[in-house]
Amino acid sequence: MMDKVAERMSRLGTETAFSVSLEARELASKGNKIYPFHLGDMNIKTPAKIIRATAKAMREGKTGYCPSAGIPELREELAKEMGKQRGISLTKENVSIQPGGKPVIMKFILAFMNPGDEVLYPNPGYPIYESQIQFHGGVAKPYGFKMSAAGFSLDLAYIESLITPKTKILIFNNYHNPMGAESHPEEMDELAKICIKHDLLVLSDEAYFDINYDGKGRSIASYPGMFERTMILYTFSKKFAMTGWRLGAAIGPEWMVEQMNRLNVNDESCSNHFIQWGALEALKATEKDTSRILRILKRRRNLAVRMLKKMKGVKIFKPNSTFYLFPDVTDAMRNLGFTEVEDFRKYILHTTGVSFCTRKHFGTPMDGEHREYIRLAYSGIDLPDIKEGLAKMKEALENPAKAEEWRSQKSG
Amino acid sequence: MMDKVAERMSRLGTETAFSVSLEARELASKGNKIYPFHLGDMNIKTPAKIIRATAKAMREGKTGYCPSAGIPELREELAKEMGKQRGISLTKENVSIQPGGKPVIMKFILAFMNPGDEVLYPNPGYPIYESQIQFHGGVAKPYGFKMSAAGFSLDLAYIESLITPKTKILIFNNYHNPMGAESHPEEMDELAKICIKHDLLVLSDEAYFDINYDGKGRSIASYPGMFERTMILYTFSKKFAMTGWRLGAAIGPEWMVEQMNRLNVNDESCSNHFIQWGALEALKATEKDTSRILRILKRRRNLAVRMLKKMKGVKIFKPNSTFYLFPDVTDAMRNLGFTEVEDFRKYILHTTGVSFCTRKHFGTPMDGEHREYIRLAYSGIDLPDIKEGLAKMKEALENPAKAEEWRSQKSG
Repeated sequence: MMDKVAERMSRLGTETAFSVSLEARELASKGNKIYPFHLGDMNIKTPAKIIRATAKAMREGKTGYCPSAGIPELREELAKEMGKQRGISLTKENVSIQPGGKPVIMKFILAFMNPGDEVLYPNPGYPIYESQIQFHGGVAKPYGFKMSAAGFSLDLAYIESLITPKTKILIFNNYHNPMGAESHPEEMDELAKICIKHDLLVLSDEAYFDINYDGKGRSIASYPGMFERTMILYTFSKKFAMTGWRLGAAIGPEWMVEQMNRLNVNDESCSNHFIQWGALEALKATEKDTSRILRILKRRRNLAVRMLKKMKGVKIFKPNSTFYLFPDVTDAMRNLGFTEVEDFRKYILHTTGVSFCTRKHFGTPMDGEHREYIRLAYSGIDLPDIKEGLAKMKEALENPAKAEEWRSQKSG
Repeated sequence: MMDKVAERMSRLGTETAFSVSLEARELASKGNKIYPFHLGDMNIKTPAKIIRATAKAMREGKTGYCPSAGIPELREELAKEMGKQRGISLTKENVSIQPGGKPVIMKFILAFMNPGDEVLYPNPGYPIYESQIQFHGGVAKPYGFKMSAAGFSLDLAYIESLITPKTKILIFNNYHNPMGAESHPEEMDELAKICIKHDLLVLSDEAYFDINYDGKGRSIASYPGMFERTMILYTFSKKFAMTGWRLGAAIGPEWMVEQMNRLNVNDESCSNHFIQWGALEALKATEKDTSRILRILKRRRNLAVRMLKKMKGVKIFKPNSTFYLFPDVTDAMRNLGFTEVEDFRKYILHTTGVSFCTRKHFGTPMDGEHREYIRLAYSGIDLPDIKEGLAKMKEALENPAKAEEWRSQKSG
């Protein structure tokens, strides 16, 4: 029957990071201690206030359908909050509630990309961008970064060189997964100018906008001429530790939001009703209620960066946002005699239990990329395990003989 | 900027019934009493057991991501229950949890329909079928019913006459919205044989399978040779009064379910985690916990049918399933001097407050359809209001002079 599967399914990608999860789970099930740096999930509790408000709404009978675009109360509050944080003027008509941030990607592509249109997207980057572009018949054109141990910046000249008359959309992910990269105001300004000059629409994936340890988030939608062409992907997942709740929003000019709402009617009808009331409480929560989450994450980041800096052959910069670290392990690999980063990953996982993804889980490396990177997420691992796991990894990086032995056992 | 909307959006339909809701809400906001027979939503409470189990799961921290296909516990229990009810053998690999029943429609079309493929779908029927077929580049071919006041049956000869080498999929909605129609075992058997003969895949929308007042539901997936080519759309919405919870499933052979799971990874990641634990409790609930909902609905059906039967010019059969009634109002319209069912609808709404949809909200009438029908949903209206509203409607149908006056005021 497999010949009955639609042709477009052959162009659908996936999150290859899931295979790392599987591998880690299998090892754990055999009694091995695993240090889960591969997870983008959070092991932090959703604030009790939000849980109470959700349970109350459920008991009060907010269990029937609600409007496809979301309950007006949540759309209004989100417009107010988002507008304040981003310095733009929003009303509820600019907000379409979604069952997660991720569904915004497919709906945006469906609503604004014709087959044959070219879409620029970050590589390394969240693998679903490329998947959705190709699935719906677009031409996926990856843009890379200038990568260095001191940090990452957009390769603006390269981005502009990719643009042709067929280029219609640019996907931008400031506060970047997997790199933790963020654009300086001038870089964002230049990128905005390129988008306007070439009349591009922008999907601004701002999933990590609020995971910002020092300073304030910036949105490309706030740059002159950008709001009318930009759709923001918003999620409740990270700031409020609500990953499994599946609630987000598409935020942008009315002409875009209207199209998203039409897709809501055709797809999920509406997002879960009662958790929208919980989310409303989340937005009204004080700094005190939500700062705990950022505080926990910051401590983890500081510890992990400190320990990674002491590892032989590892170069790392300390990102100010996201909950990802993206160290350069080229020299560490060379010291241990590995040429493939996937072998290096497996070696560390199987000998220390430290589980992480590599750059290759976030796209095929671009021409001119000569360094090897791994991604460590610290959203799903507590301080004692960060300490214990990274100590074991440090030890492993100082023992090339053991790596040599592992390789010969594997091939032998 | 509207020229930047993708071309496929011009082929996206909607639920036109929403405009009836808007009209009713507007009248209500001016102080008019409305009898909401237009709603497919339920005004019945979700059983307390389910609410308690969901709140417990939320408090216990089931707030992170879960597997894309759903939690194994729910998939297993659903496989067991569904298998028992439908007389088929299922495991959890046959179940893909979805954020509602409706998302199964788009995902099924994406996974199994190529552009240019022909898809047969019921008309009258749920408008999203046609919308999704056309949106993704398919050819929507409606099939009608033999309609009579004694009930509705499939026009099997017509269905077979529509099939060409390009026909790939048939959408079947036994326990039918809007008609309340259901197939006898022999009719379903014949339909199954047509599907096998012409090698069609089937999307079996079984949203109302459990809303069955006398006797037991039947699924076309249980007919010989059908399981391997049939995907069942399942929803928790109706039996458990969980419409606004947005939880359902795609159930079918593994080769189909795998494709749905791939789409889950690309779209919503997973359905809300903690409500899956609530849904598990729903499946384990005893007959006693859920029969209240059916009992309430049955009383409403009996009252509404009894009252409609007494109305001048109204013919109605009493459906055994769904919460819809689909009376023939041709003679009632003629008595009042209406030629357009939409005018008749507005007249009744504005003069009595009784709000309903018409056959035209469920597709363009087919060639040879000479009778006029309306759809009354009794899921969102209590017995006293059914009684009061339908009494007013009865009175209106006996007063042609008033209708004449209304028309002349409108045109004057």
